[in-house]
Amino acid sequence: MAIITILGNSAAVPAKNRKLSAHLLELDGHSMLFDCGEGTQFQLINFRKKIHKISHIFITHLHGDHFYGLAGLLSTMSMLNRSKPIDIFGPQGLQDYLEALEAIASSGHSFDVNVHIVNTDNKSKIFENNDYSIYAFPLLHSVETYGYIYQQKVLKPNIKKSFIKDRNIPIEWFNRIKNGEDFIDEVGNVFANKDITERLKSPKSYAYCTDTAYFEQLSNYVQDVDLLYHESTFLQSNNEDAIAKMHSTASDAANIAKLAKVDRLIIGHFSARYFDLSDFDKEAKTIFTNTIVATEGLQIEF
Amino acid sequence: MAIITILGNSAAVPAKNRKLSAHLLELDGHSMLFDCGEGTQFQLINFRKKIHKISHIFITHLHGDHFYGLAGLLSTMSMLNRSKPIDIFGPQGLQDYLEALEAIASSGHSFDVNVHIVNTDNKSKIFENNDYSIYAFPLLHSVETYGYIYQQKVLKPNIKKSFIKDRNIPIEWFNRIKNGEDFIDEVGNVFANKDITERLKSPKSYAYCTDTAYFEQLSNYVQDVDLLYHESTFLQSNNEDAIAKMHSTASDAANIAKLAKVDRLIIGHFSARYFDLSDFDKEAKTIFTNTIVATEGLQIEF
Repeated sequence: MAIITILGNSAAVPAKNRKLSAHLLELDGHSMLFDCGEGTQFQLINFRKKIHKISHIFITHLHGDHFYGLAGLLSTMSMLNRSKPIDIFGPQGLQDYLEALEAIASSGHSFDVNVHIVNTDNKSKIFENNDYSIYAFPLLHSVETYGYIYQQKVLKPNIKKSFIKDRNIPIEWFNRIKNGEDFIDEVGNVFANKDITERLKSPKSYAYCTDTAYFEQLSNYVQDVDLLYHESTFLQSNNEDAIAKMHSTASDAANIAKLAKVDRLIIGHFSARYFDLSDFDKEAKTIFTNTIVATEGLQIEF
Repeated sequence: MAIITILGNSAAVPAKNRKLSAHLLELDGHSMLFDCGEGTQFQLINFRKKIHKISHIFITHLHGDHFYGLAGLLSTMSMLNRSKPIDIFGPQGLQDYLEALEAIASSGHSFDVNVHIVNTDNKSKIFENNDYSIYAFPLLHSVETYGYIYQQKVLKPNIKKSFIKDRNIPIEWFNRIKNGEDFIDEVGNVFANKDITERLKSPKSYAYCTDTAYFEQLSNYVQDVDLLYHESTFLQSNNEDAIAKMHSTASDAANIAKLAKVDRLIIGHFSARYFDLSDFDKEAKTIFTNTIVATEGLQIEF
């Protein structure tokens, strides 16, 4: 099971009960951050999330509301005597920022900070381990900006317990069955793979897209993901502002979700000019029913 | 009337309901910040303080918990279309930090940011206008650190209304009386200055001292202030930690307050290791009765 927690849902400037961009993705035993606006460490404390479990941080772009919380978070990790390295991904300039901070605040860290500069004009794999891959792809904003996808790998099936029971399956067959072969026993009986295996889980995927103007190609990058976060700074009635500032409306986000045939859509990054978020909900749902309005502290299982 | 609002009271790392260092001083129609830890802008919003009224920011030292909120606050001021310049005071490195941010986040500001580097080994006046002066003085910490004093100017007395009434005082005499002269009327009657004037307010003073180890000279710098904020990271039972980390205990803070004969003492900057702050209160009050424990959002009139 994976859980997304909304740590902030406000655009540009914070508002009462709306902090700045950051989503926490929790997996089995560890977690990763998407963006790290100012105050992210406070939100982690508020929502009782363990700071030391964060293994990766993905920064979309270098506007302050998306990364000003990085300095404080890393500093707190040091104060808590973290020793495990951390991997931070983001556009050109991220390394300079971290180096400038280190030079000025002369803090240093108790652990290695591995900075990975993302630089791609298409969808590219930027990280991979046994369990999942991370992809980055360009968004359309006033500065270099990337969206990210967490893609769990296809899990090998389990052999059904009822089949293993009372049957003396040679050890070398276990991997062969898990890899898709039919099983043939010592007297030549054939057992079809699909009858003797079961997939307990389907691989999960989550896409994080902010900040961006509407562009149709985005729907190809995030095709079929389980959970799509797409910024929705404005309502369609303020579409001129969205275009001028290279942001999206609730309708834009919903249209991308529909084109991409995603399972569920989360909208957020709301402009502080709107007090009531129910209009975002309504507007998006007329286009894409399975929409969730990001509110602070909201947890979404997927 | 002046009001201090405690925006943060935690040392180094934040804790639940304990944000990072920042005090807001509100005066007639404008305000100034002492330190600006991460999340200061959120606290200003929480406690309904107007961000555009801040005219000056005084940074004590370049440890993250005292200045990482500056970037976001300035950025928000720009988003709110501030045009009035702001004056920021702090040690060497502050300018580099702001320039690095500007280069990387390529944000720019809608207003002038005037950075004033403080560099003094004694108590020096660093700012003055018609109403008040600001002094800086060195503290004793692991990096270059300054304390600050806000000192209201001695207000000229008012001429008693009962004396002005029905008496034809020549216009040129008004300033002479306000400046301390006795009044002599056209027939030679002398009216002693003290009998015909009244001081409505006594000039107020506030000192902000964090982070610092105990050193007796500090009591000379802050002699007789109305309100002294002195850090108190530890309890005396952890005095070894205080000494090793160049911080103070509640007893240290109270001893400085006593030596300096201040009116009231505020203690804060508590280590996150302490859950209950009542021990700080008790410890300080055994030495200096008029002690206030800084809690988030606390407002102190002086």
